[in-house]
Amino acid sequence: MLSVGIDIGGTKILGALVDPEGNILYETRVPSPAQDPDLMVSTVVDLIRDVSSQAKSEVVGAGVAAAGFIDAEQSKILYAPNLNWRNEPFRDRLQQDLDLQVVIENDANAAGWAEFKFGAGRGSKDMVMLTLGTGVGGAVVADSKLRRGGFGIAGELGHVRVVQDGKQCGCGRKGCVEQYSSGTAVVKAARKLAKSSGPAGQRLRELEEVAGELSGAQVYQALLEGDLAVLGIFREAGKFLGQAMATITAVLDPQVYVIGGGLSDAGEMILEPIREGFLGDLPARGFRPEAAIVTAQFTNQAGVIGAADLARETLAKL
Amino acid sequence: MLSVGIDIGGTKILGALVDPEGNILYETRVPSPAQDPDLMVSTVVDLIRDVSSQAKSEVVGAGVAAAGFIDAEQSKILYAPNLNWRNEPFRDRLQQDLDLQVVIENDANAAGWAEFKFGAGRGSKDMVMLTLGTGVGGAVVADSKLRRGGFGIAGELGHVRVVQDGKQCGCGRKGCVEQYSSGTAVVKAARKLAKSSGPAGQRLRELEEVAGELSGAQVYQALLEGDLAVLGIFREAGKFLGQAMATITAVLDPQVYVIGGGLSDAGEMILEPIREGFLGDLPARGFRPEAAIVTAQFTNQAGVIGAADLARETLAKL
Repeated sequence: MLSVGIDIGGTKILGALVDPEGNILYETRVPSPAQDPDLMVSTVVDLIRDVSSQAKSEVVGAGVAAAGFIDAEQSKILYAPNLNWRNEPFRDRLQQDLDLQVVIENDANAAGWAEFKFGAGRGSKDMVMLTLGTGVGGAVVADSKLRRGGFGIAGELGHVRVVQDGKQCGCGRKGCVEQYSSGTAVVKAARKLAKSSGPAGQRLRELEEVAGELSGAQVYQALLEGDLAVLGIFREAGKFLGQAMATITAVLDPQVYVIGGGLSDAGEMILEPIREGFLGDLPARGFRPEAAIVTAQFTNQAGVIGAADLARETLAKL
Repeated sequence: MLSVGIDIGGTKILGALVDPEGNILYETRVPSPAQDPDLMVSTVVDLIRDVSSQAKSEVVGAGVAAAGFIDAEQSKILYAPNLNWRNEPFRDRLQQDLDLQVVIENDANAAGWAEFKFGAGRGSKDMVMLTLGTGVGGAVVADSKLRRGGFGIAGELGHVRVVQDGKQCGCGRKGCVEQYSSGTAVVKAARKLAKSSGPAGQRLRELEEVAGELSGAQVYQALLEGDLAVLGIFREAGKFLGQAMATITAVLDPQVYVIGGGLSDAGEMILEPIREGFLGDLPARGFRPEAAIVTAQFTNQAGVIGAADLARETLAKL
């Protein structure tokens, strides 16, 4: 039985027709009208229609992934900072123009589910995914099910605190791991280093001169060139993430951590400090099995695959 | 269908016959041979026999709660600091002398389950319990099931870190909330205050003189007398616990927190700073529902009730 997966991003919306083994049978994308809620609804409706019309067998429903807090009924967007939405009955608004059943899902949850079911977390029972991008996203799988929490907002792992009275986070809290280990945090640290006059920022300053402004691409380039200062920035980001994971292990004790998002492209250069931070901070190390830490298998398609599969799970039960 | 609950403590072992509504039909206790593993096995076997012999209808099995890491199969004690056990096949050792089926369980998990099923967490779906005693114990209920994690060691909530490079914890990590919010931490802070020569420690010094050494009883007495310095110690303990709970909410988003253990006897004097610490640190406060924070309903019997009920759940499925 097929299902439709939609992944709403800041600049584009991805749509895909997905089979029960997680294979994408058809895929398309359109620009994201992120600032216009009404246009967002009609755009997603059109996309679901387009994708489902490609199906040659029954489609059970559509899963729509978006950044933000989704309520426990997978119906309302409680809060979406990028879309500037609060208590938006997004599912019902989509539903009223569609024959297909729809569920909505947090985007990091959808990506985590894709990794658990078809990707790097396959075969485990308890998995945690951390997505290192603009922020630090998370997904919690316990006893082989995605856990959404009592109010729907579980797995907001970027807001695990690593530093008391640390850097101010957009969520209002201080010292959230997102402020230390996201792609944004790494680029911010690189820009700061480039602005300093010391020799450590030399290569970054050269790259900045060519690019105009440092972004992830230049920082990644410096990393691949072996620039020690940039390597140090990655080490710091990885170490803090590992420390947050030690706390997550105290709570959930997963068998495997899947690390995704832009920073995970750095492979061992980010995994190694993550492992170091994790093991150095693991409660009762030596007296317990240790979780595996691996990079994600999917990249851009995790959201649509996971959203489609979660919709199949949810709607097949109704 | 009845079941037996056993709760192994440092000084005594409690045994109870429990019905499916969580009522105790028979209860007994024996001294705990904590330092002698062989004697522990025979003592628990005798206790299970005694308790089950009181039953007037079928007994489905026995649940045995103990402090320590229990493996995911609820069979081995991976690590029990008090019993000085490592990788002990405790279930099989009990089982070979019994006709009754046995499962073993972490003691904080058992207590948390009792609160979820029959006590202060009843009616919720996602609950977290924190037990403030010698350490800070924890239990995680998500989607109405106790979650033990991939290796069996979930819910070790005392090891959520609240201070980077903070106080050294027995687990090897620094800054665990257990070092700030346990009964032990509170008594330690009170003793330190009494040792100082300042006026704030005056009442504690008086109580110490009478008692010989300050323990929880004297500290609690000073609290009830309204001693401001002791109230300050409770405020500090509560605040850090609330901050740890803000991190737990980022991970699990429970509907309710149940606070148990000796410190919870302080009622609002500990709940109020816990709420303050929690809400002051809650990610995206104002954009999400807020968990209720309540004290436990059971005290000493939570362990046996929970262990018995979990055994019923597990063994009825086999």
